[in-house]
Amino acid sequence: MQEVNVGLIGLGNVGMGTLSILTENADQIELKLGFPLRVKALCSPSIAGKRLPTLPAGVVRTTNWREVVEHPEVDIVAELVGGTTVAREIIESAISHKKSVVTANKELMALCGAEIWDRAISSGINLAMEASVAGGIPIHTVLREGISGDRVTTLYGILNGTSNYILTEIEKHGSSFDDVLKEAQRLGYAEADPSADVDGYDARSKLAILAALAFGEKITPSDIYTEGIRRILPIDFDYAHQLGHTIRMVCSARQTPEGLILSVRPALIPQSTILASVQGAYNAVWVRGKYGADTFYYGRGAGSAPTGVAVVSDLMRVAREIRAGSPERVSPFAHERLGEYKPIPVTLQHSAYYLRFRVEDRPGIIATLSRVLADQQISLEAVLQLPTDNWRDRPFVITVEPASEQAIREALAEMSTNNFLVEPPLAMPMEKSL
Amino acid sequence: MQEVNVGLIGLGNVGMGTLSILTENADQIELKLGFPLRVKALCSPSIAGKRLPTLPAGVVRTTNWREVVEHPEVDIVAELVGGTTVAREIIESAISHKKSVVTANKELMALCGAEIWDRAISSGINLAMEASVAGGIPIHTVLREGISGDRVTTLYGILNGTSNYILTEIEKHGSSFDDVLKEAQRLGYAEADPSADVDGYDARSKLAILAALAFGEKITPSDIYTEGIRRILPIDFDYAHQLGHTIRMVCSARQTPEGLILSVRPALIPQSTILASVQGAYNAVWVRGKYGADTFYYGRGAGSAPTGVAVVSDLMRVAREIRAGSPERVSPFAHERLGEYKPIPVTLQHSAYYLRFRVEDRPGIIATLSRVLADQQISLEAVLQLPTDNWRDRPFVITVEPASEQAIREALAEMSTNNFLVEPPLAMPMEKSL
Repeated sequence: MQEVNVGLIGLGNVGMGTLSILTENADQIELKLGFPLRVKALCSPSIAGKRLPTLPAGVVRTTNWREVVEHPEVDIVAELVGGTTVAREIIESAISHKKSVVTANKELMALCGAEIWDRAISSGINLAMEASVAGGIPIHTVLREGISGDRVTTLYGILNGTSNYILTEIEKHGSSFDDVLKEAQRLGYAEADPSADVDGYDARSKLAILAALAFGEKITPSDIYTEGIRRILPIDFDYAHQLGHTIRMVCSARQTPEGLILSVRPALIPQSTILASVQGAYNAVWVRGKYGADTFYYGRGAGSAPTGVAVVSDLMRVAREIRAGSPERVSPFAHERLGEYKPIPVTLQHSAYYLRFRVEDRPGIIATLSRVLADQQISLEAVLQLPTDNWRDRPFVITVEPASEQAIREALAEMSTNNFLVEPPLAMPMEKSL
Repeated sequence: MQEVNVGLIGLGNVGMGTLSILTENADQIELKLGFPLRVKALCSPSIAGKRLPTLPAGVVRTTNWREVVEHPEVDIVAELVGGTTVAREIIESAISHKKSVVTANKELMALCGAEIWDRAISSGINLAMEASVAGGIPIHTVLREGISGDRVTTLYGILNGTSNYILTEIEKHGSSFDDVLKEAQRLGYAEADPSADVDGYDARSKLAILAALAFGEKITPSDIYTEGIRRILPIDFDYAHQLGHTIRMVCSARQTPEGLILSVRPALIPQSTILASVQGAYNAVWVRGKYGADTFYYGRGAGSAPTGVAVVSDLMRVAREIRAGSPERVSPFAHERLGEYKPIPVTLQHSAYYLRFRVEDRPGIIATLSRVLADQQISLEAVLQLPTDNWRDRPFVITVEPASEQAIREALAEMSTNNFLVEPPLAMPMEKSL
């Protein structure tokens, strides 16, 4: 049967992974599809210096992406460049040339995925982006097809491997954030500038895409409250464990009667939940549906080969659609829906909270803090103080019963006027059950 | 846009779950598809006594399934009857009438899925069976599309909720198999005749389907070595924990250089692996691919609504294909492949093993058993004996380094000639890492 031809633009980590799977696994891919999926053109600014697998004669090698997009035999363009400038030009040009597109670009799809989808649909081509979130986990396929009959109510994710690695290392070894970060940088698990990972911006883009898919609503990164993990201390894990919990950077999208509440932030989750078993650089997504109850998906969040599998699987699906002459008819992404899922501010969230204080030791502190909480109608649940060697700086913890984030924030602001605080209190939501 | 019409045959647990999702969630389903998915006909032997949701005028209610299959407006037939007799007739009749089929029937699809698929393909209709295995987990979609670019090398599953519930209850409470089974029967978690669940036959059918999907090979239940959980004692969990492991009924399909080894049996798995965190009636599937490394999928194995989600999601996919005029071109199931995945006997498996003995206390037992193992070239790893109150019947454990199942079986047969054994030894494979 007639082949479908692919042009790969970008031969970094993901591009090289994709290329090697397409060549090494070509026999199985052809058997699964019923026709061959061929690499027809490759583009990279450093194409001359790349160690490429053996390729059949006639494969275009170029430094100019337009040669790939405009190649008459290329049916699908894989945009594996990343970023939001050239990548956007490539995708838009491919759509104008009526070429289907597979992309791994989380940043671009989080920022303007809905818009790009609209253009793709009106041009009658396919667009696929499994690799843009949690590379090794086929979560797009699951949301788009696997559980499409369900009505998602909540989605939780651990979507940044670096920050999960750092948190689980702090948990295991009791080392400080700074020490673990340095070690992670030395091992190549964290970038020289770690901000995208540890401050939550990378996870935020991913949550924007997943929440859009899960709820069919237009969601952009700015809809998502985001807080990083720099302030987490080893003692926070000790307190969390005492409470039967652990700490993860949780990406969460929750339907409430008022709308959708979205956040990326460190949170306490029960140790007994399967989400708590996600260690190291792994990613996971946990979905609650109205009908299907809870499902959970786990795998590598990144890496050349796992992300390459996502790109190749997308290429296969799009190739099948091309052969069958059937582009996707409805965007799975940012499609106008029932209006039930408008993002609302995180301050409307109700949750139990973990509040951790570092104070100058003096009498009456608990009394003062309790009074501030009571003024906000927040009920105290427990006060915990683990023994410590350092009597000058004794972190202690107050947990409170479910309250609005707004009330918590007002209480924390009021508390901060007291000069016994060594630093502003740290507040984390505390999930009672998952 | 023009609607697609569904006929449901069978209104038991799964059928009623499907019907209520199709009616309650109709608005979202229509938005996701871009056209309505309508229930057109319902069939059940007890249709008159069913409490049905409010349905539009003109929905056929019948006790005769042929009226559904032959209804000119029905585009997709959902076979939710189960079993291998009438169900097969229904599916074959639907295929002859060029109607696409969605089925939840694990038994039938395990027995003759490949054959049914061949008929479906040559008739140009779609066949979908997500609900046949691990109802709440969209594992078919994952294997067929989500990770289709990968080359699966190993698949592990916990595919029977009842036996997993029983094992985890024995683990938690130290109760005997018989007591836990009785309690499970009282609670409705286990059938009056529990054999299909606790002897592994239900899990075997499910593994046959998943392995066929994952490896693209014709696999039937008789290719799968199957052993139940009746012999597991609470003390086996104590020994397993001492070894850093736990016990689960593991469905496994593994590629070896000689072929595919398939089994359903209790096995020791490391407590640190995410598979060990599967508690109670949940199901899980763990897949290792050559490229994508490990992914893990978890959810409800059964239940009216979770299985209903699987059926409805299949109906949506098939409806989309019908509207796009594109039946599946290649069977995802039991397709002739590269010949690398022929099932071979479990006796060719190499693994570490846990061997548990119940003996009459007398001197020289360990010496005798060690000699038998040495005769088979099996290296002893550890001998464990936990203290017990019952000195007449002291179960103890020998773990051995990786050996062939054939050698283990020969050693066990040789050991059984010794009259100090109270019962035949219990052998379980011991996975060192997952």
